[in-house]
Amino acid sequence: MREKNTFTIFGGTGDLTFRKLLPALYNMEMTGSNPFDTQIVIIGRRDYTSTAYRELARDWVEKFARLHFREDVYQRMADRIVYYRMDFTKEEAYGELNDFYHEINAGNHIFYFAVAPRFFPVIVQGLKKVEGAQGGKVVLEKPFGESLEAAAALNEKMEAFFSPDHIYRIDHYLGKEMVRNIQTIRFANPIFSNVWDAEHIECIQISALEEVGVETRGGYYDHSGALKDMMQNHLFQILSIVAMEQPRSPAVEDMHREQMKVLAALVMPEDISGSMVLGQYEGYRGEPSVAADSHTETYAAVRLLLDNERWKGMPFYIRTGKKLGKREMQVAIVFKSPSPEAESNILNIRIQPTEGVYLQFNIKRPGETEEIIQAKMDFCQSCSVEHHLNTPEAYERLIGACFKGERSWFSQWDQVGLSWKYVDALKDAYRRNGRPVFSYEQGCSGPKEAEQLLAGYGHSWFDK
Amino acid sequence: MREKNTFTIFGGTGDLTFRKLLPALYNMEMTGSNPFDTQIVIIGRRDYTSTAYRELARDWVEKFARLHFREDVYQRMADRIVYYRMDFTKEEAYGELNDFYHEINAGNHIFYFAVAPRFFPVIVQGLKKVEGAQGGKVVLEKPFGESLEAAAALNEKMEAFFSPDHIYRIDHYLGKEMVRNIQTIRFANPIFSNVWDAEHIECIQISALEEVGVETRGGYYDHSGALKDMMQNHLFQILSIVAMEQPRSPAVEDMHREQMKVLAALVMPEDISGSMVLGQYEGYRGEPSVAADSHTETYAAVRLLLDNERWKGMPFYIRTGKKLGKREMQVAIVFKSPSPEAESNILNIRIQPTEGVYLQFNIKRPGETEEIIQAKMDFCQSCSVEHHLNTPEAYERLIGACFKGERSWFSQWDQVGLSWKYVDALKDAYRRNGRPVFSYEQGCSGPKEAEQLLAGYGHSWFDK
Repeated sequence: MREKNTFTIFGGTGDLTFRKLLPALYNMEMTGSNPFDTQIVIIGRRDYTSTAYRELARDWVEKFARLHFREDVYQRMADRIVYYRMDFTKEEAYGELNDFYHEINAGNHIFYFAVAPRFFPVIVQGLKKVEGAQGGKVVLEKPFGESLEAAAALNEKMEAFFSPDHIYRIDHYLGKEMVRNIQTIRFANPIFSNVWDAEHIECIQISALEEVGVETRGGYYDHSGALKDMMQNHLFQILSIVAMEQPRSPAVEDMHREQMKVLAALVMPEDISGSMVLGQYEGYRGEPSVAADSHTETYAAVRLLLDNERWKGMPFYIRTGKKLGKREMQVAIVFKSPSPEAESNILNIRIQPTEGVYLQFNIKRPGETEEIIQAKMDFCQSCSVEHHLNTPEAYERLIGACFKGERSWFSQWDQVGLSWKYVDALKDAYRRNGRPVFSYEQGCSGPKEAEQLLAGYGHSWFDK
Repeated sequence: MREKNTFTIFGGTGDLTFRKLLPALYNMEMTGSNPFDTQIVIIGRRDYTSTAYRELARDWVEKFARLHFREDVYQRMADRIVYYRMDFTKEEAYGELNDFYHEINAGNHIFYFAVAPRFFPVIVQGLKKVEGAQGGKVVLEKPFGESLEAAAALNEKMEAFFSPDHIYRIDHYLGKEMVRNIQTIRFANPIFSNVWDAEHIECIQISALEEVGVETRGGYYDHSGALKDMMQNHLFQILSIVAMEQPRSPAVEDMHREQMKVLAALVMPEDISGSMVLGQYEGYRGEPSVAADSHTETYAAVRLLLDNERWKGMPFYIRTGKKLGKREMQVAIVFKSPSPEAESNILNIRIQPTEGVYLQFNIKRPGETEEIIQAKMDFCQSCSVEHHLNTPEAYERLIGACFKGERSWFSQWDQVGLSWKYVDALKDAYRRNGRPVFSYEQGCSGPKEAEQLLAGYGHSWFDK
């Protein structure tokens, strides 16, 4: 009897599974991009029957799937969901898991580790008892490690079991439509590609602003902080796509090679106080599971330089933080100003929540004047209804890519390693320099020191 | 007693006066840009009292002024309108006109010749009898002459009486907001100015499409045609602004010098059949006052080259015509295509009826694909209500400029002369080559030969 494709989620009763993975699987069921014979094994420590779990999952799918809810489609998917109760931190439990897999005729494994990275090693250890697991694929949630050292050790363990090209490190920002669009915008438009360098660009800003605070994730976040939670992974990925040379082919290796060159060209700042500002929002220390004397940053802004021909001397400003009054992720290409009277041309790539591109440019103020004012040419991709229906969400796209073995939009170890190395070094330098984590009010745009950082170079943060 | 500023309209019962000039004067009264003591002398052959004329004019102002109608404002203006009946084609009538001007204490004259150019000389001859006329300003409606020779003779007569810098040749397209914006868009935006040349641009298209036919102007139009009515003046003015080098100052002389250089660089095509298509809409010969065997073109499309460093080898395609299914005037900058899979970037400057700018660029089709599709970044200036209230119409702006003695946005004789010379030569070459005036259906986009013209060079007309 032929084995059935099996998609196993460790951490099957967690937020990620309910909010993202199950809705993504449902959307894939709707669009037919999910192999129909795939059985979905949910592993959790809580006591559910498969039937009870399916009922529970229905509510989350109804609420969070981008496509409308159809009972028949959900039933078709739910029929293939099996709940399996186990304590995945206990190595000895995996023998029974192996038996269970035999019972359900499981095979062609994809394991989704929707758990904290400290559990990755024990799961890998346990899977040694599962026949066929070693030939399977594994999807890992970020953060991948907590430092370069920890990440390297973790990676070694993962690669000792799984084949390196079967390890899919999720960076869900890489599944976002506009992140995947950056390459096309850059390379398929001569009007931009001709001027995509330090000669024509004044600075490039990458911003990931969050409106929320740490919410229920205080325990995790307080050990991580903005640099590790957002910058090391998402923002460095985007930086490397924005700054890389055109890959010579669409093949994953070519793109990764170019991204790696960018990360390798990152310059360690000589003057850390003129290059980095960390902040913490007021009230953070009172959040659940956060240390009362925490110095963890909930905001980070960094000025980066790349030592290569295209970008020499031109600053990249990257910032991210929580409780910043709005949710917005965007890249702003600020071109050099043509004259003292005219503002810079700014190409703004909006990644979320709105997806689109706009160009701020200069026109004459209408009427009897030659005064120059700014105007926006706007392309709002997410404004189209058709778009909304047609665009898969990040998780949907990434799970689909994993099914198909497409590796372009996952983080590779060498990228992760280089990013860690750089972020670790920045953080060390900041500490050694004795710089404080600056306080900022909730709902403002970050610590005033981050404004001053840019002002020192004659720049300012772009807030459309 | 101090003389009163006097604005005299010859042709005061014509369409232009009712539809454009009086509404413009009313708008200026509303915005306070009209010197409040100016008396308005309306000269016509019909028998009106000033009171009757003011009543008649009210209806036109109510209907055609861009600003809302306020009775008190109209009254304030109407109180200064005097109707003066005379046959301006009779030289002997001007002695009485002089007496009348004395009576009303007229001075600081501005004469608006809202009549056909064949009447210009007789009016000038008559004005010799009017004291103070010679020191005044004169505003001339297009077309200025009917050929280079006729225009030159006319100009000589005008300049023998009026000071050359008191002659204001109206080209109402030069009063349009987006035409005046072209310089700012070009020179204040490095993203465009960096690529504004034959190295980066595939072709530039200037289109002035009309939905209407000749309507009541068949008699005039049949002697003129599209080349003289539109191309020689409006379109060559726009061409010269699009193609000129940046003037070294905003002074009128500097801009004119650069525009002149463009016109002087126009290359006479070696192969007229590969450079020009004339057309006539079906049914044109049946229009009122049109000759039954007319060969007048109601459509003209021309491929032009400029012999200078910036534009060498890059074609400008210019077209205009009547009964083309829509009213639309726009400039399309078609950049070179980056690859066979991607369309050209196109910067589209929309002059009328919509005012705005958009950029057609390439993005990734949303979803699980790397396919490239076109999208538009759009800036619609005329979509804003505030804009509509704040932007003077072309005539309003140009009359205001004449009051203030600002000459930048009027045609200079040397420009007019060069344009005539070139258009005359094109027309001669076309005739000598034995090319026909091609017929086209009403409501289509012009003769198919105009499509073929561009297709021969691998191009096509840009119709957004």
